[in-house]
Amino acid sequence: MNNQTAPLNNWIDEYHNGVRYGLEGEILIDERSRFQQITIIESTRYGRGLLLDGCWMTAEHQEKHYHESLVHPALCGAEQIQTILIIGGGDGGTARECLKHNEIEHIDMVEVDSRVIELSQKYLPSLGQKAWQDPRLNVHINDGIKWASNSKDSTYDVIIVDGSDPKGPSEGLFNKTFFHDCKRILKPGGVFATQSESPESFFKVHIEIIKTIRKIFGYADPLYGSVPLYPSGWWSWTFAATDSHRYLLPKKSRAESITKECAIWSPKWQKGAFNAIPAFVERELSN
Amino acid sequence: MNNQTAPLNNWIDEYHNGVRYGLEGEILIDERSRFQQITIIESTRYGRGLLLDGCWMTAEHQEKHYHESLVHPALCGAEQIQTILIIGGGDGGTARECLKHNEIEHIDMVEVDSRVIELSQKYLPSLGQKAWQDPRLNVHINDGIKWASNSKDSTYDVIIVDGSDPKGPSEGLFNKTFFHDCKRILKPGGVFATQSESPESFFKVHIEIIKTIRKIFGYADPLYGSVPLYPSGWWSWTFAATDSHRYLLPKKSRAESITKECAIWSPKWQKGAFNAIPAFVERELSN
Repeated sequence: MNNQTAPLNNWIDEYHNGVRYGLEGEILIDERSRFQQITIIESTRYGRGLLLDGCWMTAEHQEKHYHESLVHPALCGAEQIQTILIIGGGDGGTARECLKHNEIEHIDMVEVDSRVIELSQKYLPSLGQKAWQDPRLNVHINDGIKWASNSKDSTYDVIIVDGSDPKGPSEGLFNKTFFHDCKRILKPGGVFATQSESPESFFKVHIEIIKTIRKIFGYADPLYGSVPLYPSGWWSWTFAATDSHRYLLPKKSRAESITKECAIWSPKWQKGAFNAIPAFVERELSN
Repeated sequence: MNNQTAPLNNWIDEYHNGVRYGLEGEILIDERSRFQQITIIESTRYGRGLLLDGCWMTAEHQEKHYHESLVHPALCGAEQIQTILIIGGGDGGTARECLKHNEIEHIDMVEVDSRVIELSQKYLPSLGQKAWQDPRLNVHINDGIKWASNSKDSTYDVIIVDGSDPKGPSEGLFNKTFFHDCKRILKPGGVFATQSESPESFFKVHIEIIKTIRKIFGYADPLYGSVPLYPSGWWSWTFAATDSHRYLLPKKSRAESITKECAIWSPKWQKGAFNAIPAFVERELSN
């Protein structure tokens, strides 16, 4: 479509450094919680969508890229997966993906903003689906950084950090003290996972996250994929362990049990996504 | 940045199916050639950018993803690379990437729209760089489909199709007759490469291209990467050969000779990008 004939419809845009990404739609909710501006829209393309502080978080028909990429490399690689900690993840998508794994017995989900959960349950029920009623899911409205700091050593098999960009309520989820606590409360053979920003739109932060986590845990690698809603559409997740690159190798029985339910993830895709590290990032990491 | 505080600057957007992607900037050129609307902008984020019929094609500081992904898997995998055909590619970026390979002796570049070349040479000189003066590059203002139809059997070691979406002047670059001609004019041990759209924004077209090329050539595989300017930011290129999956395995000496000059591409990245086929595409291709 030519620029001169741009439709006159309503557009909801995220602005980032001279680039904007917008969905056509209507704003349903736009409110200020204790922590952030929460906006829920109805889009023509991806169904209902969620923005926090004007940044795209998720949308009903555009969320599997993010959630499958964050969850399955961790859950397929850890030695045990009985006990899981999710920090953030208030839309419910991460919990839903975790619960595809039958071995899970207990999830602590620590979300700082109760309104994100309440509004997601009401307006984006396809994100959390039955996870909200699952007795294995224990939701705590609490500060994830404090939760990690207060947890006992070797508590969790897998820790998944599902937060927004390193500013506002999520800022502390990207610093050393928090990562050290995560390492401490992880069981032997456990895996730590976090979203780690775009190598294109947040290059310095991306490199810093990987280097810091690698130093603290011993083993850490980024995985690259696509999240069309996020700045540049090119996103990353970083996985870490203390004993080996165990997150690179999905356990066969777990992989087989979830493959049919995944839209993006497969063992082959995961192998590719870990290798698809761009040359400019690889050079920077080897410095 | 919050939606309510959107800056009042100038935005140039591509609209696609309820989504828009815009760069902040100024329009420098906006003219109608014989074939299409050509727009050149100066953006704050990626320098000068080119749109054809209102769709983002390339930008000075955002073009390596596309050109390295299209060129190097083909040129590192073909048996010989003396004689190359580029169809389209009027901005010069594909020719520039090809000419990184010293073995090349002759490139025919067949671009239908002379204005794309003239305006790219004037406003986007960093795309083509010295390629425009290289005696190995032979530019023909001509219809690429007719060129392929009129070429003799076994003429080219590598054929690279660098066209826009399958509508307007590029429509014929995606049909069977054209692919059959490309197979016919390819030398034994040759490789065919084409951009093959987004698995997210052009799913049906994407699947159709791969299936058609696979049927005609015998061997064909998609490679996935990121082009932030294009719809969804998630893009693909498809490579084909008649004797084997030879495009999957870069020849070591060629790979070593270009690695330092590449921003995205590396043998490891390429291996990942071929494996990173999303589950929903793999299922569709196996039907």
